Amino acid sequence: MKISEKLKEMGIMLPSKKPGGVYKPVVQVGRELYVSGQGCAVGGKPAFQGKVGAECTLEDGKTAARICAINALGALADYLGDIDKVDCIVKTLAFVNSTPDFSQQHLVANGCSEFLRDLFGEEKGVGARSAIGVAQLPGNIPVEIEFVFEAKV
Amino acid sequence: MKISEKLKEMGIMLPSKKPGGVYKPVVQVGRELYVSGQGCAVGGKPAFQGKVGAECTLEDGKTAARICAINALGALADYLGDIDKVDCIVKTLAFVNSTPDFSQQHLVANGCSEFLRDLFGEEKGVGARSAIGVAQLPGNIPVEIEFVFEAKV
Amino acid sequence: MKISEKLKEMGIMLPSKKPGGVYKPVVQVGRELYVSGQGCAVGGKPAFQGKVGAECTLEDGKTAARICAINALGALADYLGDIDKVDCIVKTLAFVNSTPDFSQQHLVANGCSEFLRDLFGEEKGVGARSAIGVAQLPGNIPVEIEFVFEAKV
Repeated sequence: MKISEKLKEMGIMLPSKKPGGVYKPVVQVGRELYVSGQGCAVGGKPAFQGKVGAECTLEDGKTAARICAINALGALADYLGDIDKVDCIVKTLAFVNSTPDFSQQHLVANGCSEFLRDLFGEEKGVGARSAIGVAQLPGNIPVEIEFVFEAKV
Repeated sequence: MKISEKLKEMGIMLPSKKPGGVYKPVVQVGRELYVSGQGCAVGGKPAFQGKVGAECTLEDGKTAARICAINALGALADYLGDIDKVDCIVKTLAFVNSTPDFSQQHLVANGCSEFLRDLFGEEKGVGARSAIGVAQLPGNIPVEIEFVFEAKV
Repeated sequence: MKISEKLKEMGIMLPSKKPGGVYKPVVQVGRELYVSGQGCAVGGKPAFQGKVGAECTLEDGKTAARICAINALGALADYLGDIDKVDCIVKTLAFVNSTPDFSQQHLVANGCSEFLRDLFGEEKGVGARSAIGVAQLPGNIPVEIEFVFEAKV
């Protein structure tokens, strides 16, 4: 099944968004698609704010990470004109706005990784990954994730 | 206008620097130029020290981010022998030494991004970007930025 | 001398590990090998826990960073079937779980960089690098490092 069809089946509409600063949402080099750090905005407003371990729970963080992935796909669909031109995920780097004691950044990142795996399948939807706890993020969001995808030939 | 001429017009001399540790300032793979994390040193000393939100203001951070970009171009000129061999910026990852409450890392990063845009132009000078708040940086500098540029064929 | 022989000479056995989450340890694009963020586990347990500057000393951090590098080589050997298929290191991004005051992340990262330099030699064993202080890491480990290596043709 095509990614676009699977998204429809999941009831997910990809958002379209103008960059809010001096950057491009996606830059392509060869087949590699570098996607700028994505936050958890829905309809122009952050779905969550605050640190995981304080204002946000682990579950909030996982949900925020899933939204980051959906926003990344939205940026790719805008750039490529068609989400079905994406072949696979290469890597993700997940930044979790963490209290000094919260140490389950990998479980937060799973919110993004499980979604991409369910959408693209085990082979093409699971990439390399790092997950770290950061001191703060723009707009006090709980999660920001940057991605490298690969385009189909 | 060539980048080297535009830099002269802007009154900017690119610095030449030996790496201060076990790393190479630039590594090339194909046309991609990976630039090591650059700090805000000027003439061998950090232009700013401390966290943005405490010892450093947003404006200090923006200025420091601009210096990081100039230091990156210095490293590229050393590596390539000629800054005009750089074609465009691919991506930046901006680390802002932040208090737990400072959440305008994207505005700090603009100090770097606006400079590169003004120098290379909107098409080639704006790349993908992530900006995050970190707990500390080497030497207590307020900003460190790593870059991927692309070389001309 | 081959890398596999040099490792034997150094008395280092590369570990084999299943990924502990929804990610692949290594993803290859062309000749580039993206290695997921590696921690300092030895035999399934973290060799160190806590922040550098508090529970962990600089020396602990350096040792942890060296273990991250060994774990990365283990992941590469699993993926490629033979560690001698690795040509060189391209870049590392070192995340150091830091107190707000610890500012020697570059020296912690040297624990990884010096090991790779000693193993692969100055030309192929030294890459681009960034080192930053983060607020926390998965499992409260002191160091996590992500890598890009290059495979032989």
